[in-house]
Amino acid sequence: MAENGYADLEKQMLLLHDHQEKHFMSSEIVRDIIIGVSDGLTVPFALAAGLSGAEVTSSIILIAGIAEVAAGAISMGLGGYLAAKSEADHYVRELKREQDEIIAVPDTEAAEVAEILAQYGVQPHEYGPVVNALRRNPQAWVDFMMKFELGLEKPDPMRALQSALTIAISYIMGGLVPLLPYMIIPVAKEAVIASVVLTIVALLIFGFAKGYFTGSQPFKSAIQTAFIGAIASAAAYSIAKAFRA
Amino acid sequence: MAENGYADLEKQMLLLHDHQEKHFMSSEIVRDIIIGVSDGLTVPFALAAGLSGAEVTSSIILIAGIAEVAAGAISMGLGGYLAAKSEADHYVRELKREQDEIIAVPDTEAAEVAEILAQYGVQPHEYGPVVNALRRNPQAWVDFMMKFELGLEKPDPMRALQSALTIAISYIMGGLVPLLPYMIIPVAKEAVIASVVLTIVALLIFGFAKGYFTGSQPFKSAIQTAFIGAIASAAAYSIAKAFRA
Repeated sequence: MAENGYADLEKQMLLLHDHQEKHFMSSEIVRDIIIGVSDGLTVPFALAAGLSGAEVTSSIILIAGIAEVAAGAISMGLGGYLAAKSEADHYVRELKREQDEIIAVPDTEAAEVAEILAQYGVQPHEYGPVVNALRRNPQAWVDFMMKFELGLEKPDPMRALQSALTIAISYIMGGLVPLLPYMIIPVAKEAVIASVVLTIVALLIFGFAKGYFTGSQPFKSAIQTAFIGAIASAAAYSIAKAFRA
Repeated sequence: MAENGYADLEKQMLLLHDHQEKHFMSSEIVRDIIIGVSDGLTVPFALAAGLSGAEVTSSIILIAGIAEVAAGAISMGLGGYLAAKSEADHYVRELKREQDEIIAVPDTEAAEVAEILAQYGVQPHEYGPVVNALRRNPQAWVDFMMKFELGLEKPDPMRALQSALTIAISYIMGGLVPLLPYMIIPVAKEAVIASVVLTIVALLIFGFAKGYFTGSQPFKSAIQTAFIGAIASAAAYSIAKAFRA
């Protein structure tokens, strides 16, 4: 009966591929776009609004804004590149360590597998065969330890470069929105009003899209995103005004 | 013999707690400090250097810099808060879904456990008892699916607030370093030199510490971090100069 049960399990496993689970997995690219656009929309917007509080001309606001966008895109882009690179390096170091440990202290590593499964109430006579199966197959054993002990996934080698470019371009796209009015309207006091309206609309649309693509409530996300932009620029405006006075 | 083998495994498991594996796990707080300080040191620094290329006074550079630090700290801090919050919400949604699926489609979920273990070359007669053990214990089964199918860890409820404050304070600390010279030296052309020297030194020290605390090479990290700051501010400087001309 038991043997038959396991055969059923195998049949079920084959059927599994027909069953699509709709767990929402937001991809890493979506995350990078969100990081870039939300900071890009918010910080140059707040900086420009802040400087308008200090009564400087549109052209100085524009220079400061564009300098900020360039600096922010490079800093966040290269920062993202190095973060992804160091994640990949971390994986390689830990992989090497697990490979060494499986050879040097196999009994300890086998006990670690046992401990992982015991956490879920599985008894020694139940997990024993699994531990033995892994010991038979060192490559699979290492993969098992990487995922189940350390929670590390094999990183994509193109990830670092892709992440850098995605974040930087998103930051520039986001950052140019609030600066657009300062390019067209020479009087800073008028440009700032157009910039506020344009950016709040952009933050609401972006927040909505962000909520939609990450599987949370789009309307709540729209309001939250616009709120962050408003708070940041109100703070920048007040501080700049206080310093100018 | 087999039974004896599994008893040995249990004994080994108890011994395990004496054996400390030195896998370097950089804590989430360290990550938040790194995010805040590295962006805080780089962007206001580059902005200030960029504006000095546009030949504006120290006082306008200072106002722009402080407005940027305020906006950046709020944007990144609140952004970090919402990111941690949406991670926690995502966990709760997926937990609910797994709990429902284990009741609604237990055979499918059991086949998913089988599929996870089969990936590591474990045979049906070996993983069968583990699958049955999980079916006996629905709470452990749900935990197993959350961790091993979805790779999700239970989030700390205080994490969102802690993350927001850590990032914001780190950004302010980092951002004030390059602005310090502009507070003391009224001539922008002189202040920018002091700011460059001070910030490069700070980037080197911070990069070294970052490498040290994340388990990678400290010297390489010091050079990389200073390099990002230099590239970002050179770009901001060139762009601001081009726009002013």
